[in-house]
Amino acid sequence: MTRIAIVGVAGRMGRTLVNAVQQDAEATLAGGIVEPGSSLAGADIGELAGIGKLGVAAADSLAAIVDDFDVLIDFTAPQVTLANLAFCADHGKRIVIGTTGLSDDELDELDGYRDRLAMVFAPNMSVGVNLTLKLLETAARALGDEGYDIEVIESHHRHKVDAPSGTALKMGEVVAESLGRSLKEHGVFERVGQCGPRTDKEIGFATVRAGDIVGEHTVMFATEGERIEITHKASSRMTFAKGAVRAARWVAGQGNGRYAMQDVLGL
Amino acid sequence: MTRIAIVGVAGRMGRTLVNAVQQDAEATLAGGIVEPGSSLAGADIGELAGIGKLGVAAADSLAAIVDDFDVLIDFTAPQVTLANLAFCADHGKRIVIGTTGLSDDELDELDGYRDRLAMVFAPNMSVGVNLTLKLLETAARALGDEGYDIEVIESHHRHKVDAPSGTALKMGEVVAESLGRSLKEHGVFERVGQCGPRTDKEIGFATVRAGDIVGEHTVMFATEGERIEITHKASSRMTFAKGAVRAARWVAGQGNGRYAMQDVLGL
Amino acid sequence: MTRIAIVGVAGRMGRTLVNAVQQDAEATLAGGIVEPGSSLAGADIGELAGIGKLGVAAADSLAAIVDDFDVLIDFTAPQVTLANLAFCADHGKRIVIGTTGLSDDELDELDGYRDRLAMVFAPNMSVGVNLTLKLLETAARALGDEGYDIEVIESHHRHKVDAPSGTALKMGEVVAESLGRSLKEHGVFERVGQCGPRTDKEIGFATVRAGDIVGEHTVMFATEGERIEITHKASSRMTFAKGAVRAARWVAGQGNGRYAMQDVLGL
Amino acid sequence: MTRIAIVGVAGRMGRTLVNAVQQDAEATLAGGIVEPGSSLAGADIGELAGIGKLGVAAADSLAAIVDDFDVLIDFTAPQVTLANLAFCADHGKRIVIGTTGLSDDELDELDGYRDRLAMVFAPNMSVGVNLTLKLLETAARALGDEGYDIEVIESHHRHKVDAPSGTALKMGEVVAESLGRSLKEHGVFERVGQCGPRTDKEIGFATVRAGDIVGEHTVMFATEGERIEITHKASSRMTFAKGAVRAARWVAGQGNGRYAMQDVLGL
Repeated sequence: MTRIAIVGVAGRMGRTLVNAVQQDAEATLAGGIVEPGSSLAGADIGELAGIGKLGVAAADSLAAIVDDFDVLIDFTAPQVTLANLAFCADHGKRIVIGTTGLSDDELDELDGYRDRLAMVFAPNMSVGVNLTLKLLETAARALGDEGYDIEVIESHHRHKVDAPSGTALKMGEVVAESLGRSLKEHGVFERVGQCGPRTDKEIGFATVRAGDIVGEHTVMFATEGERIEITHKASSRMTFAKGAVRAARWVAGQGNGRYAMQDVLGL
Repeated sequence: MTRIAIVGVAGRMGRTLVNAVQQDAEATLAGGIVEPGSSLAGADIGELAGIGKLGVAAADSLAAIVDDFDVLIDFTAPQVTLANLAFCADHGKRIVIGTTGLSDDELDELDGYRDRLAMVFAPNMSVGVNLTLKLLETAARALGDEGYDIEVIESHHRHKVDAPSGTALKMGEVVAESLGRSLKEHGVFERVGQCGPRTDKEIGFATVRAGDIVGEHTVMFATEGERIEITHKASSRMTFAKGAVRAARWVAGQGNGRYAMQDVLGL
Repeated sequence: MTRIAIVGVAGRMGRTLVNAVQQDAEATLAGGIVEPGSSLAGADIGELAGIGKLGVAAADSLAAIVDDFDVLIDFTAPQVTLANLAFCADHGKRIVIGTTGLSDDELDELDGYRDRLAMVFAPNMSVGVNLTLKLLETAARALGDEGYDIEVIESHHRHKVDAPSGTALKMGEVVAESLGRSLKEHGVFERVGQCGPRTDKEIGFATVRAGDIVGEHTVMFATEGERIEITHKASSRMTFAKGAVRAARWVAGQGNGRYAMQDVLGL
Repeated sequence: MTRIAIVGVAGRMGRTLVNAVQQDAEATLAGGIVEPGSSLAGADIGELAGIGKLGVAAADSLAAIVDDFDVLIDFTAPQVTLANLAFCADHGKRIVIGTTGLSDDELDELDGYRDRLAMVFAPNMSVGVNLTLKLLETAARALGDEGYDIEVIESHHRHKVDAPSGTALKMGEVVAESLGRSLKEHGVFERVGQCGPRTDKEIGFATVRAGDIVGEHTVMFATEGERIEITHKASSRMTFAKGAVRAARWVAGQGNGRYAMQDVLGL
């Protein structure tokens, strides 16, 4: 059993992580921390997560629970994460990091710990997204030279500020690489007005922004007579939380190093 | 029973029209013409359409079948259509026109016949598209002010040269009008890079071009917690052919005038 | 501003309701109650809901907040709801009830309060589902006699115990009624083996059970050449919570009576 | 260049095959035959197919074009196909057979030719369907033991007499085998009434029958938080025709034997 602690256990992602650990037969919820001074310190972590009393109270520092856990899961903010990373390195813990938005300097600092502990660092911990990338590679290799048009369609909630999504671009890159094409040269990101017929090698992107869509990605391979569509739909943070717990179980048995989700999944 | 003749009976749309007439219990296939000099003149119209002998041979002029039909269906080219329109006006026939791409002068010429015969002229004869426009109006009125984001997604084959499709724009206009918005002001036709969060009133368009997709349109109304999607998928020219036959049956009972598909459907 | 209180503010639906009230510009979160004896009594309702401090503490009885609210929202269990209904009738409050699973006796008891206060009682408060029913009626009337096949496809999470869903059946009934058909006679709920070709008037149902799907319903009208699909996707309890808040705002201005969601939406 | 002849060149599938050969840069349309006595013998094959004159007249026997072709493509009826198979074996030709509905005796007779010529015999020649089966195997192996629910949804036209489709069953079998399950034991083909919650290992099937849907298959892998969907949509006979032409090009270089589509595609 892997003993897991969670940072930010009163936040949305933290609560989702509590749920994911509870559902995993090979992991135990060993502790969780909230921000110093929160009115929720001392509250039962299970009640906070809406799944009933678990008998584990929220702490307000890692030091308070240092003897209870083996692996820390951290989806917070860069500076918080780096402080927690130092704590884990100093105390013989392992860590799974889902925090995004690190600057290049912060990434360098993070990377500097690769010889001091075992960490998994991945911007997208969804098992499904990582599998989808593998399927795209297979499909692109099988279909690429036989006249199939490739399009990537992605939909996200109204708050997303960039387009296409990082995951959509990653999907396009995997397809382009499998076909010996360059996304820079062949990616088409807008079609407005008299844009002419489609060219054979282009990889098109279409973007939808609406409501609360967590994240949907479809890659279509279409030719005269048929279409193959490979789709990933994230319905909740749970997909990232479950990937993180899977990563935590896996990293518990690894030597020092910085690992990616592909390592965890063995893809 | 409405006696129908078809122009261009050896072409793809002509054959589809033959099928549509045959499937309609209240219409009879009275004749069809091919281009002068075609090796297919004299061939059985049913065999040409791949549905077995019908006992009606393809003619190579309207004059040869003038006594056989009541309504002509014409999905050809502007100059051919205008010549056939003159023939119908001179001989007491009615006409259904699905030809597109008429210049302003050609449109004026066509319109000049409105007092001389009964004609239906419509760029999109699909019953479903016309119903969809009606549903969009209802949905937009019910949801518009309650925080629903509206997006239009359309997919067409690789040969289409413009984007978004005319039908997608029409859908956007119907929604915008129902909400008192202007598509010019609130239509968003591209999202690339750091484009910021979605604004409340925008109506987004996304375009897919791939393979042989005849035409698919979805209008999405999404808010936190739910989505309503209204989708039209054309799977073959049959949708336009069936609309044309319905229009032919309808126009057989009308007085002189130029009618649209909304008139035919009573929407 | 409608002052709203929420029953079961620490549960999943209660938290979602807190979010929905906060997002509504014309409603105020006036209070919330938790089960007597819960460790969460006294906690800030906003922190419980994961949206930060709101300055409103969770109470453990309605009596403690009787002066603070105008409308109570209750998605709990039949006996709890009936007790709260009595309290509201006695204290001049209005109520919105989303509780399901009431026995016939409990329904009678609930109905007995219709002359003592204004209540909205609805098994599905989603604005979108109620609009979808309206769109289905329009579509069925326009297409029904022109050879369109009608199918209802619904998907729900793995825990759902019945099929098709109540909402799918309701959709089928609305379509059948609009066409003068009987769902008992024309509903087809399974197709296995050599079941023969589809009959013209049947209304087919297909059921998917998988993962955490909150609820997706599509009604398809398909004929040769085209399909119209009307789809509702619930992505979270938020859709029901927002409908409930809308109902609360509306019922605040009504006289005594028992109302349905169609009354609230004016459909 | 592979010289290809087509049986039944005036039928729907025959015309589609003419189109597919014309679009293939490495194949030549060498001839085609119609039924003895057809009014279409002597007509230009290209005009029959609606793509303009090709300068190749339809013959009414294989003997008349024996010197013109290398590979015959036959999508007709069992007895016609067996006669053509004998002709090809006697005259040193290769053959691609897409005919379905052979009895066990007819299959034995067909198989008896495996030492006398090179033939491809496949009930589904779609490249996409065969690729999809490969993707399903990969996905099932990666996800199977991690709590993903598997469902197969298939849609076909109103004339289809059996359910689920043979292709849907094949997809279910591939998934079941990849997971060490038995479709006989774990396949669930109907869910009606109080059927209880989903079990972990079941593979569910849902069937839609409507309009003119050529064939759509989706296999869904869903868990809490995400879904992966792998979808194949056939939009026309073209998908089968193109697979057949690809098979014809491939079999032109093979020694005697009976081959399947997996051999052609190298999957």
